[in-house]
Amino acid sequence: MALLERLVKSRIVLVRPRDPNNIGAVARAMKNFGFTDLAVVTPHPLVWDEAVRTEAVWTKVVSAVNATDVLTNANVCDTLGEAIADCNLIVGTTDRTRVEEKQTVYTPFDLNRELGAADYKLALVFGSEKHGLTNEDLSRCHRVMSIPTEPNCPSMNLGQAVAVCCYELIRDSSQAAIVPHPAETATAGATEAALQLSLEVLRLIDFVLPGNEPDLTRRLRGGLLRLNPTRYDIEMLCGILSRIKRGLRRTGE
Amino acid sequence: MALLERLVKSRIVLVRPRDPNNIGAVARAMKNFGFTDLAVVTPHPLVWDEAVRTEAVWTKVVSAVNATDVLTNANVCDTLGEAIADCNLIVGTTDRTRVEEKQTVYTPFDLNRELGAADYKLALVFGSEKHGLTNEDLSRCHRVMSIPTEPNCPSMNLGQAVAVCCYELIRDSSQAAIVPHPAETATAGATEAALQLSLEVLRLIDFVLPGNEPDLTRRLRGGLLRLNPTRYDIEMLCGILSRIKRGLRRTGE
Repeated sequence: MALLERLVKSRIVLVRPRDPNNIGAVARAMKNFGFTDLAVVTPHPLVWDEAVRTEAVWTKVVSAVNATDVLTNANVCDTLGEAIADCNLIVGTTDRTRVEEKQTVYTPFDLNRELGAADYKLALVFGSEKHGLTNEDLSRCHRVMSIPTEPNCPSMNLGQAVAVCCYELIRDSSQAAIVPHPAETATAGATEAALQLSLEVLRLIDFVLPGNEPDLTRRLRGGLLRLNPTRYDIEMLCGILSRIKRGLRRTGE
Repeated sequence: MALLERLVKSRIVLVRPRDPNNIGAVARAMKNFGFTDLAVVTPHPLVWDEAVRTEAVWTKVVSAVNATDVLTNANVCDTLGEAIADCNLIVGTTDRTRVEEKQTVYTPFDLNRELGAADYKLALVFGSEKHGLTNEDLSRCHRVMSIPTEPNCPSMNLGQAVAVCCYELIRDSSQAAIVPHPAETATAGATEAALQLSLEVLRLIDFVLPGNEPDLTRRLRGGLLRLNPTRYDIEMLCGILSRIKRGLRRTGE
């Protein structure tokens, strides 16, 4: 599944969330990675009353930052069944300590691989901050997924867990996306000229001995190339070296 | 680098954080993935007064949940230089919109691969919630890293960004490519000493003018770090610079 398709066909489902700031943080994390489809199942009434679900209210949830559109467009459902009805891969999240014995637990990485191999409409389901998903909720899921956290601190913040999952879902597709902006790299000729000027200076301070010249030259050249200097770097270096050379020559006269 | 080693040898550095709940959320995310080494550079005084940095205070930061030990054990530093002095791979994070033109930007995935191939003491540096890292901060970093977020919503919540990075770092350490990389990389402290010696020499040849010193320092530091020098490289460089300095001083006398 290509990245854009994956973004459109993935839904984040929050079941019985309690803290508006966590819901806002989830929206922000989703938008950071390009996801927009949020469903919320029976949120705490004080948190999300249909009558007050306006942009004006959500802009007060500072954690959402500029993702209030994700919140105002969210689908508020009475049941999990309703929230996932049109999806064909339902993945419930849980922390590892809550997983039943002998149950297969997927990692976000496994899910990423599975999505790469098939065309799914995904629902990624997160439980309430305090109690997670119930066994009843999990029975509606094709997969149980857990972020590989430490056994002594397994439970993640809801917004952070969603951030990690969204990151993983776009992870491989994004690899090609960040291409280093190429600076104008110095030519081999300019770099070699700087190297020769360096060697002149090193001779003036008796750093070059008959025995070590080839090795030293190789080391310096290798270092210069590893630096991958820009044209400007080399011009500055040559300026510095010329001035050092003049300074040292004055001593020699 | 094996997982356990990676956890022990990775430090999260927060520069000028303002919100105690964000610091708490960072600690929780770290502990979720097994990281414990936290350094905080000049936190907002109201946020982190050494006198009140006790477990009793931190337990009030609810976002930390059961990671208050990470907070009470954190190292509070006056400068970024101090926080990273014993590390030899410094990675500064930024959002993509703040990246200077022509700068190479790494992803967490790139970093994961690089750590798989070599033995580093890593410092992963995050800027303040509002302004991120300054150019001066970034000039102390070997790499600039950015989580691949959407251009229209690039800036992540601090705790979420740390969670994503920690997740990526432990993600598949066992599957990372094994490439021999035997050289011992120079520490930030040793590299900084070489930089200061370079500046002394540049002053002797009048290359440092009142107007260009900060910019020049940044450029030189950035260049040195991009070179990713070994301990031996830095020793040789300091040897050369000391001899140049002596040579030039003789002129001055």
